[in-house]
Amino acid sequence: MANAKTLDDLFVDTLKDIYWAEKHILKALPKMAKGAQSEKLRDAFLTHKEQTQVHIERLEQVFGIVNKRAIGKKCDATEGLLKEGDDILKTFKDSDALDAGLISAAQAVEHYEIARYGTLKRWAKMLDLDDAVDLLQKTLEEESETDETLTQLAESFANEAAMA
Amino acid sequence: MANAKTLDDLFVDTLKDIYWAEKHILKALPKMAKGAQSEKLRDAFLTHKEQTQVHIERLEQVFGIVNKRAIGKKCDATEGLLKEGDDILKTFKDSDALDAGLISAAQAVEHYEIARYGTLKRWAKMLDLDDAVDLLQKTLEEESETDETLTQLAESFANEAAMA
Repeated sequence: MANAKTLDDLFVDTLKDIYWAEKHILKALPKMAKGAQSEKLRDAFLTHKEQTQVHIERLEQVFGIVNKRAIGKKCDATEGLLKEGDDILKTFKDSDALDAGLISAAQAVEHYEIARYGTLKRWAKMLDLDDAVDLLQKTLEEESETDETLTQLAESFANEAAMA
Repeated sequence: MANAKTLDDLFVDTLKDIYWAEKHILKALPKMAKGAQSEKLRDAFLTHKEQTQVHIERLEQVFGIVNKRAIGKKCDATEGLLKEGDDILKTFKDSDALDAGLISAAQAVEHYEIARYGTLKRWAKMLDLDDAVDLLQKTLEEESETDETLTQLAESFANEAAMA
């Protein structure tokens, strides 16, 4: 029997996945910020927390565009990614390599989001959801900028500290 | 008490993480290829399987450079990412949206790897491990190319099929 699922279903499923992810990232960021040794990294995590709140609101707007209730669906990948961040916090606590490790964990999360928003934007385009395309594009840009900021931070101080 | 862990420890820990990841991705790719509806996507997964074998061998060389045994450490993120691919295979089986979903799942895996290899390359540079930098850079380029190939495939046919 043919399965009648279409791109609309895939779009909504993936929207629920990233909605769950963003909400859990929002909860994890203050813990990452508290753990960070350098003020610059702490600030970067707190700035990203503010952005994440906006990303959640944008996703709620996208749910509205497709007339669906904003509901998250557990995202195993994000759960795993955040667990890796926790492990870094524990294993490298009070070590000179902690910030380098936290940046690495955070960049893995950013890349997951970049993949998801890239896909969602592509599908929104195919589905002629122009307003959704704009919202997803904005978030995609911010995730990419955050990834870039983390790379700069890593190169400017965290790795040198880790070698001390 | 200070924690004496350094960037060397972080480097080896992350090497073990991606080594585990690559080995499990290698096992998952034939299943993804078998599930793919279009021949082009099946071929892309099989080509990437061959590359993944080489990526594993390169990681073994990097372990050799730092005088460590090549041992994997369970990567929760990859486990979650591969589970998402499995879910797509089940939920969208025989539907027109299957290939679009498989590409999305595969791109999330690629982005995880891009984040990891980018980080490892940066650290290898800091640790003056020039040969490791070269090996990690080669794999990083191939992962980025695979991500690009998947985007092209998605744009050329999978999404259109999903809307049929």
